[in-house]
Amino acid sequence: MFALRTSVEQVELGGELAPRFDADGLMPAIVVDVETKKILMLGYMNADALEQTILKREAHFWSRSRKALWRKGEHSGFTQHVESILIDDDQDALILHVVVNGPGSCHVGFRSCFYRELELPDGVTEGPVGLRCVEDVPAFDAGKIYEGLANPTQV
Amino acid sequence: MFALRTSVEQVELGGELAPRFDADGLMPAIVVDVETKKILMLGYMNADALEQTILKREAHFWSRSRKALWRKGEHSGFTQHVESILIDDDQDALILHVVVNGPGSCHVGFRSCFYRELELPDGVTEGPVGLRCVEDVPAFDAGKIYEGLANPTQV
Repeated sequence: MFALRTSVEQVELGGELAPRFDADGLMPAIVVDVETKKILMLGYMNADALEQTILKREAHFWSRSRKALWRKGEHSGFTQHVESILIDDDQDALILHVVVNGPGSCHVGFRSCFYRELELPDGVTEGPVGLRCVEDVPAFDAGKIYEGLANPTQV
Repeated sequence: MFALRTSVEQVELGGELAPRFDADGLMPAIVVDVETKKILMLGYMNADALEQTILKREAHFWSRSRKALWRKGEHSGFTQHVESILIDDDQDALILHVVVNGPGSCHVGFRSCFYRELELPDGVTEGPVGLRCVEDVPAFDAGKIYEGLANPTQV
């Protein structure tokens, strides 16, 4: 399913998928909601996750916290149907355009994982930069949907 | 400028920037064009690049190929003015909303680095997945703009 990488020209201008995974065997994948055009999350894929995503048209990732193949929505039911996939110039990053089968894609309960905006300071600032929430309310009850599962956020 | 990470709750629901960089000291940053809403590129920031980006409102990254702080557009002039920054639930990924001072953000010469779409097969496929270009023409002459500079793409 993947071509070998043979030259810069082939990687940048060729017509074959020749992905480059990092030292951990992973590649970032940006997930975009086709309905709202908003970015929902950024996940990481290994070769297996990318193959499963292409074959099944359903987003699969590598869970770095659980160290396992992760079919997005396997616990919540909020799966992501993949309509199209883009790859970047050096073939080490992906964009998935998806239809979400559910109210959200964020384990905290928001529609998008990117629910906070930085309060950019005017010039040098004392203390930490502030964050403000840009989504009004959680999209679902994460405590209920993910009951009994470990939180993937690491401190 | 950054808070220490003290708890899952603080990281996910707190009002202070407490970023988590990976083992290499990096964090992915997705760059979105505020005019077209399209994703232009995915870069990596270390703490210094994130601080410079916040203070100067101009996108800075860590160049993994050159192993140096990289002010986007320092060679081409096609800088990225940062209008806003979002951060994700566990604070290990960013979105920059930018205005590009120039025709593009891709070192190959396209407006976006994501100029190719995968030709998703129907079922199991023989051979590599195909790619087709989704941008009609390059946005600028990369050979001229980046003349004399090493190509960052690694085979």
